[in-house]
Amino acid sequence: MGAVRLSSQEEYAKLIDQYDTWMFDCDGVLWHGDRLIPGATEVLSLLRDRKKNVIFVTNNATKSRKSYKGKFDQLGVEAKVEEIYGSAYATAVYLSSVLQLPKNKKVYVIGQSGLEEELREEGITYIGGTDPADCTITPFSLENFTLDPDVAAVVCGLDTAINYTKLSKAFQYLTRNPGCQFIVTNEDSTYPAAHGLLPGAGSISAPLRYALGKDPIAIGKPAKTMLDCIKAKVHFDPRRTIMVGDRLNTDILFGQAGGVSTLLVLTGITLESEISGSNPSPIVPDYITTSIGDLAIVDK
Amino acid sequence: MGAVRLSSQEEYAKLIDQYDTWMFDCDGVLWHGDRLIPGATEVLSLLRDRKKNVIFVTNNATKSRKSYKGKFDQLGVEAKVEEIYGSAYATAVYLSSVLQLPKNKKVYVIGQSGLEEELREEGITYIGGTDPADCTITPFSLENFTLDPDVAAVVCGLDTAINYTKLSKAFQYLTRNPGCQFIVTNEDSTYPAAHGLLPGAGSISAPLRYALGKDPIAIGKPAKTMLDCIKAKVHFDPRRTIMVGDRLNTDILFGQAGGVSTLLVLTGITLESEISGSNPSPIVPDYITTSIGDLAIVDK
Repeated sequence: MGAVRLSSQEEYAKLIDQYDTWMFDCDGVLWHGDRLIPGATEVLSLLRDRKKNVIFVTNNATKSRKSYKGKFDQLGVEAKVEEIYGSAYATAVYLSSVLQLPKNKKVYVIGQSGLEEELREEGITYIGGTDPADCTITPFSLENFTLDPDVAAVVCGLDTAINYTKLSKAFQYLTRNPGCQFIVTNEDSTYPAAHGLLPGAGSISAPLRYALGKDPIAIGKPAKTMLDCIKAKVHFDPRRTIMVGDRLNTDILFGQAGGVSTLLVLTGITLESEISGSNPSPIVPDYITTSIGDLAIVDK
Repeated sequence: MGAVRLSSQEEYAKLIDQYDTWMFDCDGVLWHGDRLIPGATEVLSLLRDRKKNVIFVTNNATKSRKSYKGKFDQLGVEAKVEEIYGSAYATAVYLSSVLQLPKNKKVYVIGQSGLEEELREEGITYIGGTDPADCTITPFSLENFTLDPDVAAVVCGLDTAINYTKLSKAFQYLTRNPGCQFIVTNEDSTYPAAHGLLPGAGSISAPLRYALGKDPIAIGKPAKTMLDCIKAKVHFDPRRTIMVGDRLNTDILFGQAGGVSTLLVLTGITLESEISGSNPSPIVPDYITTSIGDLAIVDK
């Protein structure tokens, strides 16, 4: 069954009536970098006026929820920290709640300050990350390396200070510390930067995946782990919940895996040509609209 | 049909009689790091005394043939530069002879000085590599990046100064310069360093492979490209040629793909348990011996 292409005021009004909980991807849905998608704030206000639950679900693991909130503030979009679910936060919750990492164990981090901040908030001890000793292009040597036996997991997110030292240390922990877990915040191959695409978190963990010949535990969309994290904090009825996103293989898959409805917008990664045309994607959303701003018509 | 396990003096003598050209992997076959495998030099002398062609075939792309020759000298192993085939050299030859890179085109390098040296010797212009401007952990921004339209290939080898700048630039060339070729010196997932395993060249190119969703052209063993490079320089009869190596998925596969015989030694990566036991590798060499030193028995 194909996706329903929304266009009339009645269709948008019916859509809004049908769902109580609205989950939004942010980049490519609400904004592009520092530019708001026209109508996005109006639609969010409209949903809040109608007492809808609004949740923001982002794979961006370079920012903590708190720093991501700063982005909303800067763009004038209303949001509470508790409404924001990032893959850094979900990773920290996974370590503390699902893996139940013992207090005397620690994590080796490949990632940025936002990931470290979320780990700290969940009381997880970590090494690596932004530690200047690991952010170097000095050649790595095993001779000067001491294996910390307390490292029980390697957590890898987007890290624009990736280097051979971090990859080598992570590889040592994953191969030499028995049972050491290999966890990635998300698997996005690229991400939309200000002036184009750059390698994403999935590309940063690719060397470890290749060297180990083993797939990691992935936390962000489309993995169900992110939804489990949201479920632990907010109550929602999947039948009355909709995920809005711009990416078929993360956002829409994520919604489908979680048993919620899905709305694809065409303001981001997924192009019109990928859903129509002669070779459409096998991932079919429930609804499609050009832009989130289209829903503003309901109030006109 | 299983491999022949060699043990008697007659068997080794027959083996030597049977083959005129002997191709050797080096690390794990002739030496471990800076330590010679006992008997290796004697066996090489024995082969030379009997007028055998001796060829050294290494995936190590961090060294040029000239600097690799220095390693032979240092360990007291006789070798001529022309007998050494490294994946850096084979990559340079592939660019000049097979791709026939026009003189006004250039290569973006992720790799070390040995790779640059071989490119220079083949008259190939390159950027990136060991250029201090690219060997930085300063965050990369597309705003400060100018795409060079003359970059017609990205060449990636082991680079222990790998960083986000190099990965991002390579990704730009591969996605924005039409027809830009993606070439890797070799695909080894790890390599045996002085005190253990570290991520290999295949792990360094893994982020690009993942971000692009595309496999590169691989040059080193087991790829046939390396053999084509040897064939262009030396004449050998495949039926009277044997490849000696320690790694089933590079050395032995390489020999088999090239239609030459294969001898596995157990002094390196491949363990006894991988060839016997309940779940043996599907890659079966023609012959197995414990160490290259075993062949010295012929002269005793």
